[in-house]
Amino acid sequence: MGGFSISRDSDVPLYRQLETSLRDALAAGAIPPGERLPAIQEMAVELHVSRNTVRRAFQNLAADGLLEGSAASGFRARGPAHSPTPSPRQPEFNRPAVLEEIELGRLRAPAYPQPLQPDFPDIEEFPLKCWESLRAQVLKQSAPDLLRHVEAAGYLPLREAIAVRLRETRGVNCTAKQVIVCAGAQQALHLAIQTLLSPGGLVGMEEPGRYAVKAAFLHAGARVLPLLVDEEGMIAPEARRQNPPVLMYVTPANQFPLGVKLSNARRSSLLEFARDTFTWILEDDSGGELCYSGQPASSLQGADGHGRVVYLGATGKTLFPSLEIAYLVVPPALLENFLKTKELLGAQPCAIDQATLAQFILEGHLEAHVRRMNTLYYQRLQALAQSVDAELNEFIDPEQADGGLQAVGWLKRGIDEQAVVQSASGAQVDVRPLSSFGRTALLRPGVVFGFAGSSEKQIAAAVKRFARTLRGAARPNFLQRLVGRPQQ
Amino acid sequence: MGGFSISRDSDVPLYRQLETSLRDALAAGAIPPGERLPAIQEMAVELHVSRNTVRRAFQNLAADGLLEGSAASGFRARGPAHSPTPSPRQPEFNRPAVLEEIELGRLRAPAYPQPLQPDFPDIEEFPLKCWESLRAQVLKQSAPDLLRHVEAAGYLPLREAIAVRLRETRGVNCTAKQVIVCAGAQQALHLAIQTLLSPGGLVGMEEPGRYAVKAAFLHAGARVLPLLVDEEGMIAPEARRQNPPVLMYVTPANQFPLGVKLSNARRSSLLEFARDTFTWILEDDSGGELCYSGQPASSLQGADGHGRVVYLGATGKTLFPSLEIAYLVVPPALLENFLKTKELLGAQPCAIDQATLAQFILEGHLEAHVRRMNTLYYQRLQALAQSVDAELNEFIDPEQADGGLQAVGWLKRGIDEQAVVQSASGAQVDVRPLSSFGRTALLRPGVVFGFAGSSEKQIAAAVKRFARTLRGAARPNFLQRLVGRPQQ
Repeated sequence: MGGFSISRDSDVPLYRQLETSLRDALAAGAIPPGERLPAIQEMAVELHVSRNTVRRAFQNLAADGLLEGSAASGFRARGPAHSPTPSPRQPEFNRPAVLEEIELGRLRAPAYPQPLQPDFPDIEEFPLKCWESLRAQVLKQSAPDLLRHVEAAGYLPLREAIAVRLRETRGVNCTAKQVIVCAGAQQALHLAIQTLLSPGGLVGMEEPGRYAVKAAFLHAGARVLPLLVDEEGMIAPEARRQNPPVLMYVTPANQFPLGVKLSNARRSSLLEFARDTFTWILEDDSGGELCYSGQPASSLQGADGHGRVVYLGATGKTLFPSLEIAYLVVPPALLENFLKTKELLGAQPCAIDQATLAQFILEGHLEAHVRRMNTLYYQRLQALAQSVDAELNEFIDPEQADGGLQAVGWLKRGIDEQAVVQSASGAQVDVRPLSSFGRTALLRPGVVFGFAGSSEKQIAAAVKRFARTLRGAARPNFLQRLVGRPQQ
Repeated sequence: MGGFSISRDSDVPLYRQLETSLRDALAAGAIPPGERLPAIQEMAVELHVSRNTVRRAFQNLAADGLLEGSAASGFRARGPAHSPTPSPRQPEFNRPAVLEEIELGRLRAPAYPQPLQPDFPDIEEFPLKCWESLRAQVLKQSAPDLLRHVEAAGYLPLREAIAVRLRETRGVNCTAKQVIVCAGAQQALHLAIQTLLSPGGLVGMEEPGRYAVKAAFLHAGARVLPLLVDEEGMIAPEARRQNPPVLMYVTPANQFPLGVKLSNARRSSLLEFARDTFTWILEDDSGGELCYSGQPASSLQGADGHGRVVYLGATGKTLFPSLEIAYLVVPPALLENFLKTKELLGAQPCAIDQATLAQFILEGHLEAHVRRMNTLYYQRLQALAQSVDAELNEFIDPEQADGGLQAVGWLKRGIDEQAVVQSASGAQVDVRPLSSFGRTALLRPGVVFGFAGSSEKQIAAAVKRFARTLRGAARPNFLQRLVGRPQQ
C-alpha cells in the first residue's frame, strides 16, 4: 500500500489526492478485487493525515462503486465483475465548469524559453533561406492555385510526401489517402478527440505526461485513467479488460518527459490489449525522429495488424514551432469520420506552406536537417551530462537520454525536489520537477532539464549558476528532509 | 397552418419533415400555447400525406412534451410554461452516432468552383507580389523570432492592427486584448462552440444558412433551433424567453444566402432578447465588408451595451481562402475561457503569415484591396442581373443583392425548383436551390447564383447555357407543375 504521493504543497485537498491515488491503484489492479484496505485509523497514521481525510476518500470511492463496505466494518476493493457499467456516476457534462478546472498558466508555452527549459528546439538552426527559396519556387509553379481552398485532408502532394517518408523512416504502414494534414500537434490531438470520444468516455493516458494533452481530454468531458510509466514505458491497463478505455494515448518512441522507449514486451501487450478490447491507440510520435543513439524505434503503428492505431507526427520539434504542421495517419475504417470532423474543426495550414514542406521533404532537406539536429542535440546532451556530473553530483544522478529535447536527473536520497526547484528558480534556470508532469511508477523524485534550445556554453553556465544556488541552500537539515513521501 | 414545405424528393421521411416544421412553428410561437391542431385526417388531406405520417409526427412531438392530447381526442400546443425543463428527452451524446448523421459531401468546398457557384471570391485578383514582398520585409526585421511559438491569442501586432481596423471600419467596440486570431472562420466558429456550449445545449441559428455551421453545432451535441429569416433578417425567438438558447448564430451585415441586412428593429430586439435572457450572440461578419451600395451596416457588436456579442471576422472572402486567418472579438468576461479553449484546439496560423497580414493592414493594402474587389464584384453582379433579365425572365425574378458573393433569384409562380436545378446541372453551372440551405420565412422557392468568382464574360456565357437547357426542359406540363408545396 506504499508509494502514495501525498503533497502538502499542492492545492489539491489531501483527501482528493488520496482518493486519486487509490482510484489509480484500483484501476491498475495494484489493489485486486476483494482485497481488504487498511483500517481508517491505521492508514491515517501511516500517511500522517487525519482520519477524516482517509474516511472521505474511502467513502467517495464507495459512492463510485469502487469500494464496498463501511467506515465501521472496513472497506474492500470491488472488482470490475461487480460493477459492469463504465461508471456508476455519470455526471452531466458542463463546458464552463470543465473550463474552470483547466489551468491556463500550465497550457501556455512561452515564445522565449528560459535556460534549461524542457521541450524547446533550437529555431536559430532552421534553414530559413532554403525554405523561402522553395516557397518562391512552388509559388512560381503553382500560384494562384495555392491560394485556393485546400481539401480537409490537406494538400495532396504533401500527403504523398509524408506517406513515403513515414513508410521509409518510421515503418508506418500507410498510403497517402490515410494521411490527414493538421495545423500542429495539438490540433491533431484535438481532431482525434473530437472524432473518437464522447463526453464521459474513458481515456487511458500515460503518467507522467503533458498537461496540454490531459487538459484536452478533460475539456472534451473524458474521464482520464492515468497509466503509469516505468523503465519499459507505459503499462497497459490489464485490470481494465472488462471495462476498457475508448482510447489510450502513448508516446512509444520517447516517453515525455521520462525519455524511456516502450519495450518490445510492452508494445506487444499494448497492441494485444487494443485488439482484444477494441480500444483505439493514439501514438504520439511527434518527437520520434530525435534519436541520439542511431536508429530510432520503429512506430507502434507499423506493428499493429488490426487497425487500432492512430499515428500522430509533427514538425514543431524538427522544423520550427510557428509552422504548425502536423499529420495523422488514420486506420481506413476511421477515415470518413476523421474527415468529417476535420471539415468541422477547420484550420488548414496555408497551402503555400504545405506545398513548400512537400518540396522540402522531396528534395531531402528534412532528412538532412533532422540528421544535423540529432548531432547538435547529442552534443548538447553530452554537455549537459558533463556539467551535471561536474557541478551537481552531490544532488543529482543524470539519466542517459536517447532522444527528445529534455533529460531527467534523479535526486539523490534525501534531496527534496521542491527545494531543488526553488533553487533553480533563484538561479533563473527553468529546471522542472518531474512531479509537475504527474506521478511515475519509478517512485523516485527527479527533475527535468531541457538542453536542445541552448548552446553548450549556455548549458554549462546555467548548470553552474544552478549548482551555486543549490549548494547555498543545502544546509544539513535540508539534506535530511524527506517531505511527505512515505517510501518503501 | 399553411407554408409547410414537405418534399417528396428528400431523403428525410415525410413524418420527420412534418415533425420538424411543426417543432419550428411551435418554437417560433407561430402555433401559440393552447392552440388546437387540425385533426389528423384533415391535416393528412391538406398535405397529401398519409394519416400515419401525421399521427407519427404528432405523437413524437407529444413524447417530447411539445404537444398534449392524443390521436383520439386531438392535440394542442403546450406552452413553455407547461414544460419548464429545456427538453424532457435528454438523449445521451454519442460522437460516432452524431458523425454518422453528418453529410461529408455537403461540408466539402471544392478548390475549383463551377461557373455561378455561390460563395467563391476571385483569387486571381489577390496582390500576391505585394504580399510576398511584405513577407520578405517582416522576415528581414523579425526572423528568427517569427519561427517561435505564438501565444494562443495570436501575434500581438496583428491583433492590434485588427482591433484598430475593426473599430474604424466596422464600428466594433474592442481593444487588441479582446482579439483572438484563429485559423480560419470555421475554426473561429468551432472555438466559440467549444468554449460556450455543452452537449444538449440549445443553439438558435438562422435558417436558411450554412450547412457547415449547423453541422458544427450538431457535432458538438447541440440541439439546433432554426430561426427563420425574412426581408428584415433573422427573427429573434421571442416565444423562447422562458427557455432561451445558449447561443444564437446570425450574419447581420449580409445574411447567407438570402443577402438581406438585419433591420434596425430586429437588431434592437435581438440585442434585447440576448440581454434579458443571457443568451450569447455569435455575429458572423466574415463577409460584412463586401457591400456594393456604399457604407456597409455597422457591426451588431458595436451596438451591444451588455457584452453579449462574440464577433467573428475572416479574410477568406477578402484575401484568399487558403490563408485561413480569421479572428474573434470576445467580451472581456469570456476571454479567459476562450484562451484556454484556444490553447487546447491548437492550430495557430503561422506567425510569418500573421506578421505579413499585420503589415498588409497597416500599410493600407487590405482597405485598397477590399475597395477594388467591391467595385469588381459590383460589376459582376450587374452583369449577372442583366443576363438573368435577358435570358431567364420567363422563369426567374432576380433579387437585388447588396453584398456577399451570391445573389438570390426567385422562381416565378409555377416554376419547379427541382427541375430548374436539374437544368443547371445539365448546363454545368452550379446554381443552388435555395431550399438546400433550409427553409425561409418568405415561403417562395428560389435559387442562389454565385457571381464573384467568374468574369463578366463567363457569367454571361453560363447564364446563356443555363437558359438554353431550361427552355428545352420547359414543356407546358412542367410549367404547370407545383411539386409538393401547398402554399397560401
